[in-house]
Amino acid sequence: MSSTNIASNTTAPTQFLQTNGQTYAYRRFGNGSGLPLLCLQHFTGTLDNWDPAVTDPLAAGREVILLDNAGVGRSTGDVPPTIAGMTAHAMAFLDELGIKTCDVIGYSLGGMVALQMVQDRPSSFRRMILVGTAPRGGEDIMHLEKPSLAKRIQDPTNKGYDVLKKIFFTSSPASQAAAEAFAQRLSQRKDDRDPPSGPKVAGAQTAAFREWETFKGERFAELRAIRHPALVVNGVHDEMIPVHNSYRLSENLPNAVLLTYPDAGHGSLFQYPESFTKHAAAFLSSESESAVF
Amino acid sequence: MSSTNIASNTTAPTQFLQTNGQTYAYRRFGNGSGLPLLCLQHFTGTLDNWDPAVTDPLAAGREVILLDNAGVGRSTGDVPPTIAGMTAHAMAFLDELGIKTCDVIGYSLGGMVALQMVQDRPSSFRRMILVGTAPRGGEDIMHLEKPSLAKRIQDPTNKGYDVLKKIFFTSSPASQAAAEAFAQRLSQRKDDRDPPSGPKVAGAQTAAFREWETFKGERFAELRAIRHPALVVNGVHDEMIPVHNSYRLSENLPNAVLLTYPDAGHGSLFQYPESFTKHAAAFLSSESESAVF
Repeated sequence: MSSTNIASNTTAPTQFLQTNGQTYAYRRFGNGSGLPLLCLQHFTGTLDNWDPAVTDPLAAGREVILLDNAGVGRSTGDVPPTIAGMTAHAMAFLDELGIKTCDVIGYSLGGMVALQMVQDRPSSFRRMILVGTAPRGGEDIMHLEKPSLAKRIQDPTNKGYDVLKKIFFTSSPASQAAAEAFAQRLSQRKDDRDPPSGPKVAGAQTAAFREWETFKGERFAELRAIRHPALVVNGVHDEMIPVHNSYRLSENLPNAVLLTYPDAGHGSLFQYPESFTKHAAAFLSSESESAVF
Repeated sequence: MSSTNIASNTTAPTQFLQTNGQTYAYRRFGNGSGLPLLCLQHFTGTLDNWDPAVTDPLAAGREVILLDNAGVGRSTGDVPPTIAGMTAHAMAFLDELGIKTCDVIGYSLGGMVALQMVQDRPSSFRRMILVGTAPRGGEDIMHLEKPSLAKRIQDPTNKGYDVLKKIFFTSSPASQAAAEAFAQRLSQRKDDRDPPSGPKVAGAQTAAFREWETFKGERFAELRAIRHPALVVNGVHDEMIPVHNSYRLSENLPNAVLLTYPDAGHGSLFQYPESFTKHAAAFLSSESESAVF
């Protein structure tokens, strides 16, 4: 590990926090005047799926805190089959860490947990970034059995990061070049890596998606009570959680800016990390009550 | 007119250009290393409807060129009843002015003209900004007869900028405060003002909207051939040209970034001029082939 470059997800040591008989694996690095930024990860993603090109520039202005939720990576326990269950774990982790107020970025599955956390404990959060995600009652959330996705996921020639390159990016040469660069960045960390997620993680997280697609009463009504400034980001060609879910977020959250990226799928933040981190940092650095930055 | 503050739409002199028996009123001010920025105006809008809080910061990095299309303000002739007709006038103006390549910002009606110009003469344009507008075949474009709009437009107590304050902004206190600031800024110019548009202008421009709602063949297919970097901007609560039209633009233009603003209607660029001009200037200053900035 390079001591001159500690504020990077390529080198930051994994740490472990115990509370209520549960151990959470996490990494915490960076500094600056900003509030800590809790980073909540995607379906089957571990600490090692956080692209250093996204985490490291953000860590230049604040601490970033990456979390393996229960049952993921080296965190103990079982993956809860609901977003509410994952939310309870993330809150317990924050409490034990002694974080009173923070910003949060939730990507995909992590965005749903972020939304639920902000709803359940509004005073613990200041600003939120929601990337490639969906509100409760969203549509077409992570149906990996769809032929267009299943074909790419089940390709017998896949190896290494091939699945992520196929499902997080579009098929254009530019997007695939960005996918290759992304895979290279994820490969840079050599030691102290999380084990990859297996079918048990995927099964419970998929159950959580199905439950998140249901809603009672007026669809999206709960979003209108969330006053926190939000930055909603998506690729226009996201096939895993289609962009219309981001439209519903930015239309119903009363204080949200929406940014969409061209020629991009679910992994838009990894395709355009320079742009994404520039806008995310500007958004997080704002002291306004408005999301507009 | 203040000679120390010439790069402002509050003080820039109106100029007149003759070609083909037609006179076009325009203003041109600002300087910097950027390409000239052609600014195409909204329904019934004249040179005096360009908010100096939008034009002036942009003029700090390039020349901005504001145009009264035929039959509007002090430009002669009749307003064409089609976007194609307005496009021909704007191209003739650019040609006579000797502009070989420029950037373009089209707002509302002006966005439709910008799209048609870029399609008709791609080599004359580099980057485009499309605010509160719609592609050909868009839906619910400027139906001022809708009860929600008609009520605000026909309110007998309206005077001055009241109609714009009611239909360009939302009813929230924050948006109405921004509306009042906008009206104050438009009032700052005291001399050399355009006459306001009358029913003849409105009638021909409305006919153009109705024609623009029609389409032949595959809807939005023509957008996919436009490779120019585009920045698409809208307020999420635009009732004049609803935001779903901006979604269709950013989904079908192959090289477009979408930015939407909360608690904002048709006049989002006038509600958040500081944010809008910051992002617009960053977009225009990019030398990339990609719209991503």
